[in-house]
Amino acid sequence: MTMASDGADKALVLCSGGLDSTTLLARMVARYGREAVVALRISYGQRHSRELAAAEAVAAHYGVPLHTLDLASAFAQSDCSLLAHGQDPIPHGTYAEQGAEEGSAPVSTYVPFRNGLFLSAAASMALSLDCTVLCYGAHSDDVAGSAYPDCSLAFVEAMGRAIELGSGGALRLEAPFVALTKADIVAEGSRSGVPFELTWSCYEGADEPCGACATCLDRQRAFAANGMEDPAQKGRD
Amino acid sequence: MTMASDGADKALVLCSGGLDSTTLLARMVARYGREAVVALRISYGQRHSRELAAAEAVAAHYGVPLHTLDLASAFAQSDCSLLAHGQDPIPHGTYAEQGAEEGSAPVSTYVPFRNGLFLSAAASMALSLDCTVLCYGAHSDDVAGSAYPDCSLAFVEAMGRAIELGSGGALRLEAPFVALTKADIVAEGSRSGVPFELTWSCYEGADEPCGACATCLDRQRAFAANGMEDPAQKGRD
Repeated sequence: MTMASDGADKALVLCSGGLDSTTLLARMVARYGREAVVALRISYGQRHSRELAAAEAVAAHYGVPLHTLDLASAFAQSDCSLLAHGQDPIPHGTYAEQGAEEGSAPVSTYVPFRNGLFLSAAASMALSLDCTVLCYGAHSDDVAGSAYPDCSLAFVEAMGRAIELGSGGALRLEAPFVALTKADIVAEGSRSGVPFELTWSCYEGADEPCGACATCLDRQRAFAANGMEDPAQKGRD
Repeated sequence: MTMASDGADKALVLCSGGLDSTTLLARMVARYGREAVVALRISYGQRHSRELAAAEAVAAHYGVPLHTLDLASAFAQSDCSLLAHGQDPIPHGTYAEQGAEEGSAPVSTYVPFRNGLFLSAAASMALSLDCTVLCYGAHSDDVAGSAYPDCSLAFVEAMGRAIELGSGGALRLEAPFVALTKADIVAEGSRSGVPFELTWSCYEGADEPCGACATCLDRQRAFAANGMEDPAQKGRD
């Protein structure tokens, strides 16, 4: 509940194993030093463990402690297609092709209030570890109309206020990518030497990314927009 | 993610086993009918299981389904005195006697961002169960200066906005007691026949309430303000 002993900030970064949160981790390690950064990965009953393994590899790369939380029980009753017990397959195509637009219902891979739960659990752990900053890699592409309402700027602002108020001002939320695109994040990550080959984005858990789910398509476009090849996709070419 | 099939509201009530959330449950059962209400209790590594047993007895009394979540892992690193692994004893005396005042640090029984985490997990479960309303029994006495910042009106408003936004408008938060005192809640519960004898408030887990912790003192005052005897305290007299 207290600041780090020297009064300096200490950051907890929510790490999914994807390239957005990995680039965010790189930024925070550069800003605060790796001694003042911890990573948190969350198991929530997702279909595969590749992203959890990726988060571990990324934390090891940056030399920061990695904590793990299991929140699967909160989604035991959900029928979301992203969950291991979900009955529906992962849809193919972009979010727009799945019908996501302003005012539409969330897509079938929306896990109910998942990011709100992740941020709250991360806030609890951050306060327990005397962190003063909680870092979240949401970006504007993930809003995708109304595909993922828990990635929007308005949502992040409301959660940030709840976290500041509910912690008595001991913790603040930072989501510096919330107005950026995934292409912007690839550009920043490329400049700062992010090991993209360690990251995992695909919703499926095969040996290689499927190349057809919405997050694979988003990732392909983000690298293409930077005139880059995705090192995690090289095995497919 | 959808409304109940007939378009009517369905409510999930966070039930701690205490008298506030029990009175809230009574209000929601009266409003929506017990077929449209579910209760959720949360295990979080608290010192004792008496409040979990009380929540079960209360749900059975009202004939509503009871769900249980275990979120203890989020607090594994916390040194809060309310937790089973906490090293410090539960303090005696009122929150004011513990130094709580406007702008002070939270009291030692503040579990880091606990209520934010509870509300988020409850939101995830509520959406999975097709609920449209999430009910939270926070009241003004629990703010107690800055003793529990995650009970304040401002916090509840921020979380309510986060839940509405992050669920794409599918779920709303109701905290109808947030501006009331515990004495007001005892008055309402008394009028509506709440079985106060089934509820448990004490932070300790002895056979009888300790009568000395802040929540016991709050409860005693709330009954006294109504000229009532607390049925859960009868064994002590």
